[in-house]
Amino acid sequence: MTRKDFRSNCSIGRTLDIVGDRWTLLIVRDLMWHGKHTFGAIQNSAERVPTNILADRLKRLEEWGLVRREAYQERPIRYGYDLTEAGRSLEPLLLEIMAWGHDRLGGGRYDPTTGKSWDAEG
Amino acid sequence: MTRKDFRSNCSIGRTLDIVGDRWTLLIVRDLMWHGKHTFGAIQNSAERVPTNILADRLKRLEEWGLVRREAYQERPIRYGYDLTEAGRSLEPLLLEIMAWGHDRLGGGRYDPTTGKSWDAEG
Repeated sequence: MTRKDFRSNCSIGRTLDIVGDRWTLLIVRDLMWHGKHTFGAIQNSAERVPTNILADRLKRLEEWGLVRREAYQERPIRYGYDLTEAGRSLEPLLLEIMAWGHDRLGGGRYDPTTGKSWDAEG
Repeated sequence: MTRKDFRSNCSIGRTLDIVGDRWTLLIVRDLMWHGKHTFGAIQNSAERVPTNILADRLKRLEEWGLVRREAYQERPIRYGYDLTEAGRSLEPLLLEIMAWGHDRLGGGRYDPTTGKSWDAEG
């Protein structure tokens, strides 16, 4: 998908064209806050993203310039992933989504300024 | 889906369990800001949400207590939809998603305090 494929001029619609699914922002979360920078590390997160979905989402994030992939080992080649500056600009959006899930759905909370976490209510 | 079906304790994961798709937050946008309170009005939005998806998402939003459905006409019965207080609490999240899409994807902007809109860059 490219810019010309956006469903509408709406900024919300455009953002959801890229990150509007159950998984993409969890991958961004792992890269942004949890120091997970390999395929395997992200896959080990509690939500257990399926392999094919993780591969697809990382590829899309890279195509949109939100994630950068770099080889950190040759033979066999291994890739590491990190957010670009554009990817990091999703942080306020992630914080707002987290705040809502904490207030309304009893989910845990994470403070990126201190690295401290609070458990979910269950 | 109920609370016990959340994928994890993560507040972001829980929020995405409910609104993490391409359509739900567009429906919330229409109810919140654009005065669209009938099935037909929402369906006429620029993104052209498919009938079956709109019916499913309205039902889920109602089950989660974010949307309230009320009959506004008998014979034939017609329903109107509106956000509950919990549904309206999604406004800061919507604003953040809009800001990102405006800054990064050139989408239009809407100011809910004035009702004024700015066109997309294209």
